[in-house]
Amino acid sequence: MKSVGIIGVGLIGGSVGCALREVGVSVVGFDSDPDRLKEARMLGAIDEAASSVADLAARVDLVLVAVPVGLVASLVVEVLESSLVTVTDVGSVKMSIIDFVSAARPDSVGRFVGGHPMAGSERDGLNGIDPQLFRGATWVLTPTDSTDASALAEVKDLVSSLNAEVVIAGPAEHDALVAMVSHLPQLAASTLMDVATANNDDQSVLLRLAAGGFRDMTRIASSHPTIWTDICVANRDAIIDALDDYSLGIARVRNLIDEGDQDGLLELLERARTARRDLLPVGSGQDEMIELQVPIPDRPGVLAEITALAGSLNVNIVDLQIAHSTEGGGGVLSLVVSAADGEVLERELVAAGYKITHSGLS
Amino acid sequence: MKSVGIIGVGLIGGSVGCALREVGVSVVGFDSDPDRLKEARMLGAIDEAASSVADLAARVDLVLVAVPVGLVASLVVEVLESSLVTVTDVGSVKMSIIDFVSAARPDSVGRFVGGHPMAGSERDGLNGIDPQLFRGATWVLTPTDSTDASALAEVKDLVSSLNAEVVIAGPAEHDALVAMVSHLPQLAASTLMDVATANNDDQSVLLRLAAGGFRDMTRIASSHPTIWTDICVANRDAIIDALDDYSLGIARVRNLIDEGDQDGLLELLERARTARRDLLPVGSGQDEMIELQVPIPDRPGVLAEITALAGSLNVNIVDLQIAHSTEGGGGVLSLVVSAADGEVLERELVAAGYKITHSGLS
Repeated sequence: MKSVGIIGVGLIGGSVGCALREVGVSVVGFDSDPDRLKEARMLGAIDEAASSVADLAARVDLVLVAVPVGLVASLVVEVLESSLVTVTDVGSVKMSIIDFVSAARPDSVGRFVGGHPMAGSERDGLNGIDPQLFRGATWVLTPTDSTDASALAEVKDLVSSLNAEVVIAGPAEHDALVAMVSHLPQLAASTLMDVATANNDDQSVLLRLAAGGFRDMTRIASSHPTIWTDICVANRDAIIDALDDYSLGIARVRNLIDEGDQDGLLELLERARTARRDLLPVGSGQDEMIELQVPIPDRPGVLAEITALAGSLNVNIVDLQIAHSTEGGGGVLSLVVSAADGEVLERELVAAGYKITHSGLS
Repeated sequence: MKSVGIIGVGLIGGSVGCALREVGVSVVGFDSDPDRLKEARMLGAIDEAASSVADLAARVDLVLVAVPVGLVASLVVEVLESSLVTVTDVGSVKMSIIDFVSAARPDSVGRFVGGHPMAGSERDGLNGIDPQLFRGATWVLTPTDSTDASALAEVKDLVSSLNAEVVIAGPAEHDALVAMVSHLPQLAASTLMDVATANNDDQSVLLRLAAGGFRDMTRIASSHPTIWTDICVANRDAIIDALDDYSLGIARVRNLIDEGDQDGLLELLERARTARRDLLPVGSGQDEMIELQVPIPDRPGVLAEITALAGSLNVNIVDLQIAHSTEGGGGVLSLVVSAADGEVLERELVAAGYKITHSGLS
């Protein structure tokens, strides 16, 4: 792979460009926004700018389409029509794109490999580009029966050269999974926020009572809405299935409570708790993770004290969060570390005068 | 107020005891677990242990009942029956307790003032007791038409002496609000976790695709289930109302997507986004808050660097979180600080070589 073309030089496209240039690949970029294309070149995200999609496709070995999800399919088709190169994309939904491309170019759809990097979705804009963005990230590829083996191999090489990890999934399976773990949570968060504020005239009391759980549950409701309307079109069927599953789940909980079935409710909550704890070890590889909860006063420097202590012990903090039990006042710092690190850190925190109120996740 | 009796010396009761003793109030404790009562005294949470509820009530000016929510009402009645003191509680649900007490002791219910401190709910056990637990916290009191003005004044004094802030709300209003901002989120999180894992045999791919949003939305699903079954009994009607509102909201979103109504969907998402941003300034008082997002590599010490920098600039980090865009690899550190602090911190972070990908919340 000597040269890669990138259509759409935003955060993802620009970051891929930077990373490829670092490993000696020549990068040609194209963007519908000429100013952005110029900026991408200035920032070192691309070597050269192409004047059109066809111009770009003619100059490279492989094309990555990194535009908003609603625009991917027609650009993939344009590349397939104007060249013989392999094409991949970074759209967060796969089935509708593959369907469109298959219908438009049944003869050359084999050169298209759908892709979806699980990185960077919360950031946008060229000023966030980062060649390290994909290091260790999951990058889903969704080949089908019609995909050329050589095209898949090329795209795998591309992903590996970005230090991301390839996960292969069927396009329908991918779409159902992201509907469940990404699209449904977004819609559920926005709905919760909307419902909570819709029926309450006196927001001030509501907001004072809204503690950590509510804040966690609604955090993503503050994300940019525009990408979500596109996603809801592109992944409509899988999202509706996920919403239906979720509605059934909510109805089930309602019935358990209505009927006073405490055993049934406890069983559900226990099952969910176990499943969530299996989810805990983000970034952990094989290590068992534990969570330390440290009450902290509300003053500058206290986080520095704790994190410096962790750093001096060579303890890697995998996740952390402040749970505010109050409006104002201090809070509880939750630190997720490996079990081995946790033992050391807990001992030293206690020695430094901190209290650990929870530790260890069974 | 010279002496306060505390029934139930767990985290909340023990912390109240410690805080009151610090301001010179004499504290008598009682607990159904004699070992815990002994430990509370050893830890300085109480001055003396009473031998029974009646013994305790006879020795103090005011009684605080700090037991699990399902046990509160009968203990309140026992205190009212065995003494003439004012009684308050810390149960997270109010209406069912007040109904029970009114029915059992219509003559003396005026001496009972329902209360609910918004603090400490995520921690339990005596080893977490902390006299500062309530500093700045919201403490809801729910007097009714039958509440004695003098009893309310006494309980207000108690709460103020703990440095918490009194918020007055009707018991039904309180229960509806906590159903919406605390109980519904818990049930929605557990349901989401359960539904996401129920239909997927291959958990490994699901868990690899589950990024920050899903983790946020399900974090509280890992909390202790037992308190929740009690709460679902105690606040049944309000929780069912909240679940019904939420189900309607989910059905509304489903219809918007099903009908391809992108304008309607965008309107909903925008409304929720605005509401969530109003929620942002936790612990901020009057200050406008902003959020800085800083990509960080996955290595020990990086959090210490950033938080030490904030500390050295006297910047108070109000909230922080690591959003892992990936399994493994680095992440994005999100820091919430006041707008004034944010300007300083962003400048210095950039000077130190960090990139800020988002800043400022409009």
